[in-house]
Amino acid sequence: MHDVALVVQKYGGSSVSDAERIRRVAERIVETKRAGNDVVVVASAMGDTTDELLDLAEQVNPNPPDREMDMLLTSGERISNALLAMAIEGLGENAQSFTGSQAGVITTSSHGKAKIIDVTPGRVRSALDEGKIVLVAGFQGVSQDTKDVTTLGRGGSDTTAVALAAALEADVCEIYTDVDGIYTADPRIVSNAKHLDHISFEEMLEMAACGAKVLMLRCVEYARRYNVPVHVRSSYSTKPGTVVSGSMEDIPVEEAILTGVAHDRSEAQVTVVGIEDKPGYAAKVFRAVADAEINIDMVLQGVSAVETGKTDITFTLPKELGEVAVAELGKLKSEIGFREVVLDDNIGKVSLVGAGMKSHPGVTATFCESLSDAGINIELISTSEIRISVLVRESDLDPAVRVLHEAFGLGADEDAVVYGGTGR
Amino acid sequence: MHDVALVVQKYGGSSVSDAERIRRVAERIVETKRAGNDVVVVASAMGDTTDELLDLAEQVNPNPPDREMDMLLTSGERISNALLAMAIEGLGENAQSFTGSQAGVITTSSHGKAKIIDVTPGRVRSALDEGKIVLVAGFQGVSQDTKDVTTLGRGGSDTTAVALAAALEADVCEIYTDVDGIYTADPRIVSNAKHLDHISFEEMLEMAACGAKVLMLRCVEYARRYNVPVHVRSSYSTKPGTVVSGSMEDIPVEEAILTGVAHDRSEAQVTVVGIEDKPGYAAKVFRAVADAEINIDMVLQGVSAVETGKTDITFTLPKELGEVAVAELGKLKSEIGFREVVLDDNIGKVSLVGAGMKSHPGVTATFCESLSDAGINIELISTSEIRISVLVRESDLDPAVRVLHEAFGLGADEDAVVYGGTGR
Repeated sequence: MHDVALVVQKYGGSSVSDAERIRRVAERIVETKRAGNDVVVVASAMGDTTDELLDLAEQVNPNPPDREMDMLLTSGERISNALLAMAIEGLGENAQSFTGSQAGVITTSSHGKAKIIDVTPGRVRSALDEGKIVLVAGFQGVSQDTKDVTTLGRGGSDTTAVALAAALEADVCEIYTDVDGIYTADPRIVSNAKHLDHISFEEMLEMAACGAKVLMLRCVEYARRYNVPVHVRSSYSTKPGTVVSGSMEDIPVEEAILTGVAHDRSEAQVTVVGIEDKPGYAAKVFRAVADAEINIDMVLQGVSAVETGKTDITFTLPKELGEVAVAELGKLKSEIGFREVVLDDNIGKVSLVGAGMKSHPGVTATFCESLSDAGINIELISTSEIRISVLVRESDLDPAVRVLHEAFGLGADEDAVVYGGTGR
Repeated sequence: MHDVALVVQKYGGSSVSDAERIRRVAERIVETKRAGNDVVVVASAMGDTTDELLDLAEQVNPNPPDREMDMLLTSGERISNALLAMAIEGLGENAQSFTGSQAGVITTSSHGKAKIIDVTPGRVRSALDEGKIVLVAGFQGVSQDTKDVTTLGRGGSDTTAVALAAALEADVCEIYTDVDGIYTADPRIVSNAKHLDHISFEEMLEMAACGAKVLMLRCVEYARRYNVPVHVRSSYSTKPGTVVSGSMEDIPVEEAILTGVAHDRSEAQVTVVGIEDKPGYAAKVFRAVADAEINIDMVLQGVSAVETGKTDITFTLPKELGEVAVAELGKLKSEIGFREVVLDDNIGKVSLVGAGMKSHPGVTATFCESLSDAGINIELISTSEIRISVLVRESDLDPAVRVLHEAFGLGADEDAVVYGGTGR
C-alpha cells in the first residue's frame, strides 16, 4: 500500500498484552511509517488489564458509579498507548500518544456506553504534520456537556479507529485482530471455510448482525456511513486480510453470489401461547418488552399450536434477558389472558448472507431443502433482501452451518464465491 | 476539628496499596465529611503501581521519552483515586475524582519534574458545592503551554495537596503517612524521642533541609508561602499528629527553646587540597561545581592542613554526585594548581534546630562540648539563625544524635520542649 497517504491502525488487547508483543507491534507500525505513510494508531488496553481493574472495583464497591468506572478503565488504554509510543521512539521514529479527550473524541455523557458525537482531531493532525506517529487511546472520549471521561462500551476501540479515520479522511482503517479476516463461515466449524478478500458494507453488516464476531456491528455502521474502507488483518501474519468497503450495488450482478454463513448462539426464544386474536394484543406484548429496554430480533405470529382460534407470538432476544422478558409479560396475563409464556434458550440462529440472493431465485428453496434433507428442523424464518436466517435447536446449529456452507458451494475447494469486480 | 469548614487530606501509596486499605481510608474520609467538613482528598498511586509501570517502560525502551513516561505514570494516581471514589460511594457519600488537569493544576512543561504555576480548582469547587467529596489525582498536572500531562517529581502528591489547600483556602492540609508526626529525633535512633504537637514553618524547613524525611522541603516551602497549616498524621492511628504552622516569631521567646535533632546520611565531602591563596581561585572551584549542576551544602575554606601558605576548600554534596565533582575539579588542576581532590563519603551530618537558639547563648558551646565529651570529632560546622549543623564520621552519626538529644534535654521524659503558646 505504498500509495496510501494516511493509515489508521487498530490493535486489540491481545496484540499488546506484554512488553514483547508491544515491541513487535511497534516494529509493524514503524514499517508502515517507513513505507511512506502517515500513521495513526489506536490500541486497546493490555491483555487482562481491564479485567484486573474490574476486579479491583468489585472489591471496593460491588456497584461502582459509572463515572468513576470510566475514570478507572480508561487508564488501561493510556498505559498501553504510552508504552507503544515509547517502543516506537526506541526504534527511532517520533511518536506521541493522546488520550481520547486530547484526540478530540467528543461523546455523549452516558458512561460505559457513550456514543461518539464528533471527532475534532486538531492535535492529532498537527502531530502528523510534524512527522510523528500518533497513538490514540481507544474506547474512550470526553463528554460534550460535563467534560467527563467516558467509555464507548463493547467494540469501542474499533469505533474509535473508524471515527478517527473518518475525521482525518484516512485512506484506510486497518483493524488488527487474532484472525486474518472474514471467512465464508467460522473455520472452527467448517474446515474448508474460504477466506474473503473483499466484502461490501451491507454484507458485512448482515454478517455482523447475524453473529460474525470479527467486527462489531456498530463499527461497520460507522464505517459505512462515512465510507471508510476497513481492512481486517491478523496481528501475527502479513496476510492481506479482508477489505470491507463499497456498496453491494458496485458488484456486477452476474458475479455477486453468496457471501457466507453466519451463526449466533447468543439468543433465546420466548413464546406467548394462546393469545386472543384481537387487534392490539400483539402490540401490548411488544410494548411490554420494549419498555423493559429489550431488543428483540426475529418475530413470528401465527395460529396457535395448542389452542384453536388463538394465536401464539414467538420472538428471540438476548439470552441474558430471557427471564426479565418472561417476568414483564407475566404482568400482562390478566389483561390479555394468554395461556402461558414459554422461554427456550436451547436454540441457535444460522444465516446465509449474500448480495446475489435477490438476483438468484431458489436460494430460499435450496436453503430449506438442504436443512430438511439433513433432518434439521426449522423453528422460525426471517429474511432480508440479502439474508435468510432460521432458528434451529442449539444442538443442530453446527451441522446446519456445515450443511448450508456445502449446499451453496462456499468452500475453498470450489470457486463459488467470485468477486471479479472487486478483487484488489 | 468540628469547626473546620474545608479539609484537604493526602494519603500516600502505602495507605491505598490494596482494596482493603482503600476501604479503610474511605471510611476515614467519610468520617471527616460526616463531622461537618468539606473534604478534598489527594491520593498517590497504589503501593507498587509506579514501580511496575517503570519496569514495563524499561522493557519496551530503556530510555523512554519524558512526555510518554508522564502519560504512563499518571495513570497510577488515576486508578487509586477512582477506586477511592467508588469506595466512598459504597459508604453512602457522593464522590467525584478528578485528574490533575481536570482539577486545574497548571504546571511548567518540564516532564518528570514540573513545577506548579497555578491552581484553578473551578470544577473542584463546584463539586464541593454539590456536597460531594472530591478526589484529586496527586503528583500530576497539565502544562500551561503544551497542554500535555506532566508529573511533579518526588514529593509531588504532598505538593499537590498543599497547592490545592492554598487555592481553595482550606483550613488545614492533612498529610497522612506511616508515622504519626514529627519527633525531636528519629525514634529508630533515639528511643525516648519526643513527639511534637506543633512546629513552625521555619523550624520544619530546617528540619527537612537537614534530613528529616517526613515532609519534603518543597511541600513545606509551598505551605509556608501560602500560610497553609499542614497536619502530619498517621494513616493507621487517630493520634493528633504534628501541626506545621505559623512563624517562629509567634512563639513567645521565653517558651521557644529547641525543636529537635536531625541527621542526614545522603551527603559526601569533597576537599580540594593545597590551593594557592589567591583571589578568585575559590570562585573557580565553586563555578566548576555549579556548572555541573551540583548543589553544594556546607562549605569550609581554611589554612591547608598539609601545605603551609596554601588553603584547603571543603564542601559537601549529594553522595551520588561525588565522582562527577571530582572529575570536573580535576580539569582545573593545571589552571589553579592545587595538590589533589579528596572524596570522602563516609561522613554524616547532624543538626540541632530550634527557634530558641538565637535567644539562648551557649547553645553552640554546649553542642560542641557534648560531642567532644563523647569522643566524637567535628569535621565541619555550619550554622543558621536557628540551626547548628556539623559533619562527623558516618560511624559517629547515630551516637552524635543521641548525645545531642540528651544534652539538650529533648527526651520525652523531660519537659524541655514547651510550646505553651502554641499547644493544641
